[in-house]
Amino acid sequence: MGNDNKSLIRRIKAAAKQMPADLVVKNVRIVNVFTGELMDGDVAIADGIIVGIGSYEGKETIDAGGRYMAPGLIDGHVHIESSMLVPREFAKVLLQHGVTAVVTDPHEIANVAGTEGLDYMLKSAEELPLDIFVNLPSCVPVTSFENSGARLEAEHLLPYYSHPNVLGLAEVMDYPSVFHAEAPMVNKLADAQNFHIDGHAAGVEREGLNVYMAAGIRTDHECVNEQEAKDRLDLGMYLMIREGTVAKNLDALLPVVTPKNAKRCLFVTDDKLLDDLIEEGSVDHIVRRAVEKGLDPITAIQMATINTAECFGLKNRGALAPGYAADFVLLDDLESFAIHEVYKKGVCIVKQGVLQERYFSNEGEAADVLPTSLTKINVKDAALTSFALPLSNDQCRMIEIIPNQLVTNGIIEEVTVKEGEFCPSTDKDQLKLAVVERHHATGNVGLGIVKGLKLKKGAIATTVSHDSHNIVIAGTSDEDMRIALQHLVQHQGGMVVVSGQKVLAALPLPIAGLMSDRSYGEVYDNLKSLDAALAQIGAPAHFDPFLTLSFLTLPVIPHLKLTDAGLFAFDSFSHISVQA
Amino acid sequence: MGNDNKSLIRRIKAAAKQMPADLVVKNVRIVNVFTGELMDGDVAIADGIIVGIGSYEGKETIDAGGRYMAPGLIDGHVHIESSMLVPREFAKVLLQHGVTAVVTDPHEIANVAGTEGLDYMLKSAEELPLDIFVNLPSCVPVTSFENSGARLEAEHLLPYYSHPNVLGLAEVMDYPSVFHAEAPMVNKLADAQNFHIDGHAAGVEREGLNVYMAAGIRTDHECVNEQEAKDRLDLGMYLMIREGTVAKNLDALLPVVTPKNAKRCLFVTDDKLLDDLIEEGSVDHIVRRAVEKGLDPITAIQMATINTAECFGLKNRGALAPGYAADFVLLDDLESFAIHEVYKKGVCIVKQGVLQERYFSNEGEAADVLPTSLTKINVKDAALTSFALPLSNDQCRMIEIIPNQLVTNGIIEEVTVKEGEFCPSTDKDQLKLAVVERHHATGNVGLGIVKGLKLKKGAIATTVSHDSHNIVIAGTSDEDMRIALQHLVQHQGGMVVVSGQKVLAALPLPIAGLMSDRSYGEVYDNLKSLDAALAQIGAPAHFDPFLTLSFLTLPVIPHLKLTDAGLFAFDSFSHISVQA
Repeated sequence: MGNDNKSLIRRIKAAAKQMPADLVVKNVRIVNVFTGELMDGDVAIADGIIVGIGSYEGKETIDAGGRYMAPGLIDGHVHIESSMLVPREFAKVLLQHGVTAVVTDPHEIANVAGTEGLDYMLKSAEELPLDIFVNLPSCVPVTSFENSGARLEAEHLLPYYSHPNVLGLAEVMDYPSVFHAEAPMVNKLADAQNFHIDGHAAGVEREGLNVYMAAGIRTDHECVNEQEAKDRLDLGMYLMIREGTVAKNLDALLPVVTPKNAKRCLFVTDDKLLDDLIEEGSVDHIVRRAVEKGLDPITAIQMATINTAECFGLKNRGALAPGYAADFVLLDDLESFAIHEVYKKGVCIVKQGVLQERYFSNEGEAADVLPTSLTKINVKDAALTSFALPLSNDQCRMIEIIPNQLVTNGIIEEVTVKEGEFCPSTDKDQLKLAVVERHHATGNVGLGIVKGLKLKKGAIATTVSHDSHNIVIAGTSDEDMRIALQHLVQHQGGMVVVSGQKVLAALPLPIAGLMSDRSYGEVYDNLKSLDAALAQIGAPAHFDPFLTLSFLTLPVIPHLKLTDAGLFAFDSFSHISVQA
Repeated sequence: MGNDNKSLIRRIKAAAKQMPADLVVKNVRIVNVFTGELMDGDVAIADGIIVGIGSYEGKETIDAGGRYMAPGLIDGHVHIESSMLVPREFAKVLLQHGVTAVVTDPHEIANVAGTEGLDYMLKSAEELPLDIFVNLPSCVPVTSFENSGARLEAEHLLPYYSHPNVLGLAEVMDYPSVFHAEAPMVNKLADAQNFHIDGHAAGVEREGLNVYMAAGIRTDHECVNEQEAKDRLDLGMYLMIREGTVAKNLDALLPVVTPKNAKRCLFVTDDKLLDDLIEEGSVDHIVRRAVEKGLDPITAIQMATINTAECFGLKNRGALAPGYAADFVLLDDLESFAIHEVYKKGVCIVKQGVLQERYFSNEGEAADVLPTSLTKINVKDAALTSFALPLSNDQCRMIEIIPNQLVTNGIIEEVTVKEGEFCPSTDKDQLKLAVVERHHATGNVGLGIVKGLKLKKGAIATTVSHDSHNIVIAGTSDEDMRIALQHLVQHQGGMVVVSGQKVLAALPLPIAGLMSDRSYGEVYDNLKSLDAALAQIGAPAHFDPFLTLSFLTLPVIPHLKLTDAGLFAFDSFSHISVQA
């Protein structure tokens, strides 16, 4: 209380010009997201908060050279784990793209490590010059058709609502459990009624949205066409327009945005890989693309700032006004959203394009200080794992990849059978696929066949596989698959390319098998070496084999998938045999 | 928790059509405040909450005959005490005008009775079919130049923030105490930082607004011209456009509202007398007038519903969508806002124009069950009160009324002096004015002279006098003034007209001397009998003598006022003698 009062007094005195502001930005054109117009004035900052707009003097003064000042961008829905970076490194990347706050759902790490995963993310987010607001994962595990590392029920989530960075319940994706008012889901929803609740309403039709809204679920980031978007806006949902690495919905949804409804629309990335984040950006990229497609630049900025803040009830974020956090970007140009500098709480984090590394502590991130649940790949006797897939005839169900889509086809083809077992064929592009349970050493191995991956030799494997994050391995030989598995177990998870019983390249992901403990630059370089190794074993370049692999395990997406418990048919929502 | 779950399950099941809704409204055109457009669909309601919009069947069905359905209106800033009604009767009046929620500042009753006044208002608001949200009075007393009934410091307010109907801190009107960061004010502001804080920034110029905003104060309802309104919007304040009994700002401010900034604007009444509420309405009247003046009807409705809800962070109010309270009005016509029926939580409170009295409990309102602080007029020896105003010469300062304004002039005129004392003169229109302290029996009597009230005989007196609510009496003779005083003390407060030492008419206000314990109809009739009595003693009809009287005591308004401690000059902000 005492400190709160002192800070409040300093803000008042600086606003009243009874003491100089800490920082004053002069010669700047302010993007006023409240009025939708540009505004002139010095911007005075004290204690990291904007305290005045007008005529001010400060201890430090910046001449912005007539540049535009926009509020720091907010990503309304992002899974940090998809960047494979720890929050600190993720923050470094996003800040360079003008993003000063994110709302994240630590769904992936929670599936691996439960509340210890949540604790890790909340702890790692502290003291960073990026606001990381958290929604609590609502669906861990996603289904009962696989073994994940954890189970989070209402009683596990409840204590987290009092955490200052927790906003509510994250994307409710299990529509049937809401529709049928199943007790575990109702308990989670009931606890969250006075907080924010995000939705994930893929394919839910207009009347079905009533069920979500009646349950207090107020957003959707899964709509893919104009009609779906219009239905969500009509029924009072915030429309999250997503543009990530795989799911790109901006082109389809932007035509729905009008001056009347724009305030109910916001931008999110959901899942974006590191190379895309570095090469094209985060929410700044969506703003840029939306403006290219004809959206008014200030409206686009509103959709990346104040609208997001209002959606989540963030009182002091997303706008440039006294009392709001001094989080802002200086832009050379409004149309191109060309970022000159980025400020967080009044501190210049990106100075003339250069990230100021000194504002990022490296403490507490080393894998060796983390609890076992976050660092151990718990596989039963990896060296002895059998990948043998016995068959009684040569007609088999297999997963056919559709490049750059999460949806797969389930097809039946003739395969090569040797000594009563499936034999991978690079000619027929029929590779072996395995999902090895890695959380509880159950020894579970799900086996199947994948078509379309087009590897010519070797094997690839990853501990990133949605949403249970067991180890998924695709290969042309059992030997290379076993070496890939052993490598990942030894190195606490990651991604690996094997050929001729040798590891060609690997990206260690020792934190929950999902995130690297290295710098974003190292991880980026590492990804490039993985790409080179993939090329060596014949992987095609027009889609990402690891990303593809990581979604072959997600049973809530059509049509055929593989879990550690075996092949899974979405259409019948049950397991099914490989043998047709 | 159990009940919450049950209600949530019922809402989900009704939304999912697994059970019939409680009520379905069909054949209706929905005013969608999210999209700014009209929308068709059945509106299904369960447990008082909208659960679906689409095609629904219910236990009860209403054919709305093609009428418009708008969300129930919300008054964003109103002092209930100004209606002189208890919350129950106030609710009855407002509901007939389509208002289903108000944000109130119990500033008047708190000045009389402190936390007991707050408790009374919060308690009285329970179980009513009107949401009464409360902001905690920030300035009790308003100044140290008078004696009010109570003093509310931060520590008195703090426990109230946990009350479910308390939203934050009410209109901060003491600009100097904020500007100078005085400890009592800073303490109140610091406690409210995570809640809503309303402002009252009369005459504060653009740069001064920075001080309010930096302190977390986010609204103003006191601006009177376009420039002031624009300044407030520019700096991120919500613009409350006020249209009450005395202060009418709609005409001046409406030109500022544009499609881009309308979402930051809302309508409030602040202070509105009962006859005006009954005869022209509440926020509905502002909507109607705004539309007459050319505002788009849906924008006007947004400014009376969702904008207000968003301003105060009311998650489930102000819109027609699943998950929102089923508070709505059926309108014959959108342009004229002609109200057909009014529903609160899905219950028809005003049915074809007729208020359904059975939804209003009469329990706990009788003055005799209230604490003494709320019912006793604590005056020292009323019968012995001396109104003698000794003078040494005939040049006196006097308060000159400007009809229908809160501002007065301070003038000097020659008066009649008899036996060394001021002698009122109806010829010169110089009447005696007295303010009798009534909270602590101090015996304080402030005496002065008022010009412009134009009474030809007798005296009038009231216990409603802003903001300390001492007894203010104006009269042509000491005898009639004393009788007026004695009547008010005997009857626990109210308003009275006396002539020839007889009470011609009176309105008892036994609750804190501010509110009647009678029905709104009785109070309305009573006001009319007061008007008749006023006419009998020669009061002019073009302004309200009681309302005028009740503001002659408010020292924070220019130029000359009277408190129980004597004549007060706003310009020097100090007491001053009557003798010039």
